[in-house]
Amino acid sequence: MGGQDIPVLHLAQEIREQPEALARLLDRQARNIQEIATQIGRREISHVIIAARGTSNNAGVYGRYALESLAGLVGSLAAPSLFTLYKRPPRLDKALVVGISQSGQGTDIIQVLSEANAQGALTLALTNYASSPMAEIADLLIPLEAGEEQSVAATKTYTAELLALAALSAALGGEASRRDELQRIPDVVGRVLRMEERIQTAVERYRYMQGCVVLGRGYNYATALEIALKLKETCYLATQPYSTADFRHGPIAMISPGFSALVIGPKGAVFEDVFDCAQELLEKQAELIVLSDQDNLLGLARTPLAMPDGIPEWLTPIPYVVPGQLFALYLSLSRGYNPDQPRGLRKVTRTT
Amino acid sequence: MGGQDIPVLHLAQEIREQPEALARLLDRQARNIQEIATQIGRREISHVIIAARGTSNNAGVYGRYALESLAGLVGSLAAPSLFTLYKRPPRLDKALVVGISQSGQGTDIIQVLSEANAQGALTLALTNYASSPMAEIADLLIPLEAGEEQSVAATKTYTAELLALAALSAALGGEASRRDELQRIPDVVGRVLRMEERIQTAVERYRYMQGCVVLGRGYNYATALEIALKLKETCYLATQPYSTADFRHGPIAMISPGFSALVIGPKGAVFEDVFDCAQELLEKQAELIVLSDQDNLLGLARTPLAMPDGIPEWLTPIPYVVPGQLFALYLSLSRGYNPDQPRGLRKVTRTT
Repeated sequence: MGGQDIPVLHLAQEIREQPEALARLLDRQARNIQEIATQIGRREISHVIIAARGTSNNAGVYGRYALESLAGLVGSLAAPSLFTLYKRPPRLDKALVVGISQSGQGTDIIQVLSEANAQGALTLALTNYASSPMAEIADLLIPLEAGEEQSVAATKTYTAELLALAALSAALGGEASRRDELQRIPDVVGRVLRMEERIQTAVERYRYMQGCVVLGRGYNYATALEIALKLKETCYLATQPYSTADFRHGPIAMISPGFSALVIGPKGAVFEDVFDCAQELLEKQAELIVLSDQDNLLGLARTPLAMPDGIPEWLTPIPYVVPGQLFALYLSLSRGYNPDQPRGLRKVTRTT
Repeated sequence: MGGQDIPVLHLAQEIREQPEALARLLDRQARNIQEIATQIGRREISHVIIAARGTSNNAGVYGRYALESLAGLVGSLAAPSLFTLYKRPPRLDKALVVGISQSGQGTDIIQVLSEANAQGALTLALTNYASSPMAEIADLLIPLEAGEEQSVAATKTYTAELLALAALSAALGGEASRRDELQRIPDVVGRVLRMEERIQTAVERYRYMQGCVVLGRGYNYATALEIALKLKETCYLATQPYSTADFRHGPIAMISPGFSALVIGPKGAVFEDVFDCAQELLEKQAELIVLSDQDNLLGLARTPLAMPDGIPEWLTPIPYVVPGQLFALYLSLSRGYNPDQPRGLRKVTRTT
């Protein structure tokens, strides 16, 4: 069974389209993102609120780290129920409110943006549909340029959301060197896609896995959330994502011998903390699947997945999610599921 | 086997001490909390950042909802790694920064508060130890008055943190009627503790459960997080907490016939959404354990746990976590574990 045997799967196609989709986003939207940063810079923004659900929420978690660390803006994820059900929205007049939605149709997210507009906040939409209701309602718009995404499990729109948020944070932060780093990302993702066969083989071992944890920290906490979500959606697997710090405050007690942990550990400021946590897991006889460019961490793994080195840490979430997407795709197939049709899910979920 | 057979367990004692601990907190700290609210009111606070780990982080999730909905303040949970490892803290000069820590010794939380001080933010500590490093460093202090907590799995300090955050939010919001509602909470918790024998019997069915989800929304998203954490810490159970909205954006695909879900559904603004989600789970042949004061939701459960009615929704997280604490205690015993000594955990976890 080779990657070429499943050309009809939207999920496989869309994973493979990512280098092209990301290059298109940079090509078409870099100037717009720069202009949006200028407009944001003109306002006295006290904080950023990001409203999103599911995969887009995971992108929002990354966006929050990027905006805080690169642009110094305090960010948070909205609690939509305060707007929709409790009808007790917080004060937003000095906020930038960012809605992220692949379809641009999430009713609760639209409600957050319209309350933000009513309060005089600046609003920004990130969506794959430039004429969607969310795009219409926002002051500012970054179209994701990912092309239609047919798989219920989102992949290319997720990495496009990450790249858009990274580019916006870099533009707000104003360090010119980051622009070149962004430009290299589509190629890096292309190189990571060469791991496809390696991953197709590696998943076999996990055919009967009952559950697992996915661990990352800092920028890659979002990666842990998103890989765990892909595994839930396509493999119906009880997968629990944690930051390595939160994991040690209680959940680590769950780990018994043979329990699997997927560890995301690129070189960077949080690497040592992630490495220590991986060692602790090994002492508890957990089995490690490791995504890293560092030999000492890869050396702890039963299933090491070596990543290209030299990726600046703030951009690692884009290439590092890709092996997770492939892992979910092939594990789903290995378990006899159709990853294009997750049971009980539709492409657009409407929640209040 | 009756509750009286395990008097030596700290966890059991501390769960039962909660009405007394909560009454003591109100008695000793109500005036201090009112004064703190006045001092906060004098500053031009643009947003609140809450820094905490583990159980205290779950209390912080509640605090964020309470501060946003009762006091109109935008709140968020801090990302400590931006302070400790990345050394890229966001701008905090107009923020109120709240540290929550049972021991007051969490090194990363202390670092967030000291950066906040350096930037001129107003800082507030909630801790059970009034002479701890975190208490010393903060401008303002609410001692939790819970008495020493010896169990690694926190219970009475969690409900004390909730009550302190509720009282602070109410004082900031200024609605006088909420003060009486707060005063009734210790008695309500006392009534809920009468469920102990019922829960001790009910857990038997779940002796061999492999994992479960815990669902709540709005104010009780925190309750879902905290009950799931207790089950992880004391029963080593793969337990996944979700807001009912997030759950439908992907994770619901995991649910197969016989999968268990603990649903938290008191009367209130989010009840209908929680009820709809419970019905969806039942269609997927999940087994429901329900905590509610509403007969229609309790009627969907294989294990209904009827709660007292008439509790104002904003305060429901305090009594509603208690049956979850008891469930974790008795399930742990039923599985042959010692809930006072969770494997691999210590009372004070130091993370960076």
